Amino acid sequence: MKDKLPLLMKEQNITALLITGAAMHNPAMVYFTGTAHVSGADIIYRQDGEAVIFCNPMEREEAAKSGMPVHVYSEFPMEELMKETGGDYAMAEVLRYKRMLEFCQVTEGKVALYGKTDLGDAYISMQGLQAMMPRIELVGRLERDILMLARETKDADELDRIRKMAGITMQVVGNTADYLSTRAVKDNRLFEPDGSPVTIGKVKRLIDLWLVERGAENPESTIFAMGRDAGIPHSSGNPNQILTLGQPIVYDIYPCEQGGGYFYDFTRTWSLGFASDKVQAVYDQVLEVYRKLTAALKPYQLFSDYQKMACDLFHQSGHPTLIDTPHTQVGYVHSIGHGVGLNVHERPFSGMLTARDHTLLPGSVFTIEPGLYYPDDGLGVRIEDTYTILNDGTITALSDFPLDLVIPMH
Amino acid sequence: MKDKLPLLMKEQNITALLITGAAMHNPAMVYFTGTAHVSGADIIYRQDGEAVIFCNPMEREEAAKSGMPVHVYSEFPMEELMKETGGDYAMAEVLRYKRMLEFCQVTEGKVALYGKTDLGDAYISMQGLQAMMPRIELVGRLERDILMLARETKDADELDRIRKMAGITMQVVGNTADYLSTRAVKDNRLFEPDGSPVTIGKVKRLIDLWLVERGAENPESTIFAMGRDAGIPHSSGNPNQILTLGQPIVYDIYPCEQGGGYFYDFTRTWSLGFASDKVQAVYDQVLEVYRKLTAALKPYQLFSDYQKMACDLFHQSGHPTLIDTPHTQVGYVHSIGHGVGLNVHERPFSGMLTARDHTLLPGSVFTIEPGLYYPDDGLGVRIEDTYTILNDGTITALSDFPLDLVIPMH
Repeated sequence: MKDKLPLLMKEQNITALLITGAAMHNPAMVYFTGTAHVSGADIIYRQDGEAVIFCNPMEREEAAKSGMPVHVYSEFPMEELMKETGGDYAMAEVLRYKRMLEFCQVTEGKVALYGKTDLGDAYISMQGLQAMMPRIELVGRLERDILMLARETKDADELDRIRKMAGITMQVVGNTADYLSTRAVKDNRLFEPDGSPVTIGKVKRLIDLWLVERGAENPESTIFAMGRDAGIPHSSGNPNQILTLGQPIVYDIYPCEQGGGYFYDFTRTWSLGFASDKVQAVYDQVLEVYRKLTAALKPYQLFSDYQKMACDLFHQSGHPTLIDTPHTQVGYVHSIGHGVGLNVHERPFSGMLTARDHTLLPGSVFTIEPGLYYPDDGLGVRIEDTYTILNDGTITALSDFPLDLVIPMH
Repeated sequence: MKDKLPLLMKEQNITALLITGAAMHNPAMVYFTGTAHVSGADIIYRQDGEAVIFCNPMEREEAAKSGMPVHVYSEFPMEELMKETGGDYAMAEVLRYKRMLEFCQVTEGKVALYGKTDLGDAYISMQGLQAMMPRIELVGRLERDILMLARETKDADELDRIRKMAGITMQVVGNTADYLSTRAVKDNRLFEPDGSPVTIGKVKRLIDLWLVERGAENPESTIFAMGRDAGIPHSSGNPNQILTLGQPIVYDIYPCEQGGGYFYDFTRTWSLGFASDKVQAVYDQVLEVYRKLTAALKPYQLFSDYQKMACDLFHQSGHPTLIDTPHTQVGYVHSIGHGVGLNVHERPFSGMLTARDHTLLPGSVFTIEPGLYYPDDGLGVRIEDTYTILNDGTITALSDFPLDLVIPMH
């Protein structure tokens, strides 16, 4: 939550945050600008909680939606800056950063850098700014990332936006099930009334359409992977494959608000018409682990404890896991979940090596997603829902969708 | 065109390009990866034209679509890199950059930096890399940007992709006209059959939908600005405004291929049902200038010559322009066009100060978009089409849509 920022900054002795870039698909900026659409801005956020947003005059009104005082770049006219830099435009832009920091009375101490930008621009401008302001120390990466730590817990408005995305996601998953179950079947394959085959590419196109209809977008695409592809967690599915009865389909959908806002993350594994015994057996094991894990969720617990628990449970059923078989490509091959917010993957993480101190805090929003993968057997199964912990410690799923493997054909 | 890269690099004595980031909404990366979807990669492109793409093992197949040899990050195992950096993960990543450059035999000379990334990460990692490889000079920004210069002219495949986006844009603009002309009218305002008002927000939602149906997306949104808003070139329109007969509407649409590929850019000014004499008169002037400019297009001409010509023509009709009234907010207030490609705005530019040497090269794709703006009179007019110059010097518009101001109501 934003109100944690001053304390987090104080703990690490950070004088100010400098956040740059567009207010679209740029989580650090969107965190402050909310639903505003600004194509380029800079925010200076001080340890005392005072913040200013700088933008082009034309985008002043949009920037004002952030609730911060707005100042425009033309208060620091480029012509004058260029005079001072002997006509060097790149350095004039750097000088403008200096002026903006000075305007905010940030003239010494550590300044942490945030926002999406170009690699080359970032390197030259921050190097230049550091040289121009030797009493400031520009900090590129913090051991404990202040913004990510603040963003780990959501305020009421953020949770509301994530819940809306959950609702949209549920509608679209429902549309998908309805659509598939009402296609014609010939030789175990799905066809449209006009005789054209129902391909994975077509289904994904429809998913995008249903999302846009509801004001969402799908910047990272959908995983809709069938058969062998379902067994490869990062295969997004072969667009030319025709949907076939009795094949496991991993359907992992993670759309966000239009313009690059809050995400939702959700997975079901389906088998159209019927399921083979082998797929059903693996599915039942994943479902059992899913139920045990979600029943065991507790506030302030280490997230990695659930990863250990998932590994233990899958190991007991005879599956390779990352604990007993590091780097395994079959069995249980990934971590049990991750936080969800302006990034589809963010704190808290559940990795036992890289995130061993991440706990499930009230206000956090995170996935639980056990899975089993056997590509050479033509199968993969994953079940994923997104959960939150309310301030009173209650654990609640943000969406509700049946946990059936088989989608019956009508 | 990519085949210009080695020469462009040689001219500026650049040993290699280092391009980083996702192959989505990251033009420098997408330029090389084409239609592949890779969530994170690094490309090292050498002056001799040899290039390698590095990615996660799971994305190997997607990365291979680039046509470049693929190598995976795990060839440089993080565990070993971290041993060398004493457990410092950030520096281990920097060390991996060093290893990748060495792998490509890039150990000295200038390396130009490209791609979208985080400001803080970019600063720390490139500063670290520079310190680790003192014989290399990392170059953040070039006077003459190599990639943008290569991208200024399009090859057949790129032009084909832009033409497809032109086709989609024309379909969607046609949908928009059909939709508007068939709404019910009450008190000069547009309503749905169910009695709900037709707002600008609703029209924009439909535009997004029609784009997604055709495999495009609209990352920078649409300008659909009516009345006074039409007179402010960067107003995108008030979503709550109800469409009204006889009001000028600037409809500027610039969608791109799904996932952040090639753009198209197009504007019409419409008045529903009828046009006021004032709007019609201003429209006729803009149309006349548009016709004169597009008739005068010639290969190898300075683009800024057409900006001068537009200013002269508008000045002769008594309108303020950026030549006679610098910083004017009324009259002709912007430049005459810009290149279109993986960025909606890219080389060539037409500004008389900032782009005075940009010429219209065969293979370039650019807009011509004269306009007049009088917000206090409740009006603005802009007409924009995207043109290309073929290799034989022929100038051709990439789309064809009627130039009528009035959209008759059915």
